[in-house]
Amino acid sequence: MIDSVEILGFVAATLTTAAFLPQVYKTWKTKSAESLSLSMLLIFVTGVSCWLGYGLLIKSLPIILCNLITLISGFLLLYFKIRYKN
Amino acid sequence: MIDSVEILGFVAATLTTAAFLPQVYKTWKTKSAESLSLSMLLIFVTGVSCWLGYGLLIKSLPIILCNLITLISGFLLLYFKIRYKN
Repeated sequence: MIDSVEILGFVAATLTTAAFLPQVYKTWKTKSAESLSLSMLLIFVTGVSCWLGYGLLIKSLPIILCNLITLISGFLLLYFKIRYKN
Repeated sequence: MIDSVEILGFVAATLTTAAFLPQVYKTWKTKSAESLSLSMLLIFVTGVSCWLGYGLLIKSLPIILCNLITLISGFLLLYFKIRYKN
């Protein structure tokens, strides 16, 4: 049975994964990424790629899934940042 | 001995923690948080708080440390978002 500590972990993972979806929506909707830091996005996408690689190597489905979704969000934000620059 | 898979995990954790520092710096420097999503910040801070609680409960120092730093970044961005609204 999953205990309450594991449930807290799942809630944490779901929230930190879902958090970037309203950011992607807002950036797409407003076509403005001016106050987003390009360094943040580059470091973040690199870090999430490492998490994904780590998840694949230790064969952890929750780590793989969360970081795959977050990586898509990260790449979309990076694309918007470059696309809406001018 | 720490193996290469664990090193990848540490690199991932360091990068996704460090990623928010240039965002905090940029937002503070430009005094602009317009394109940051408030929903993103609220969900993110809640999620990172859950991660911190999870880390404390399972007594994992890396999870505690990374999420403590990320939580400070998250709260600073949330503060800037509200502070620089007008």
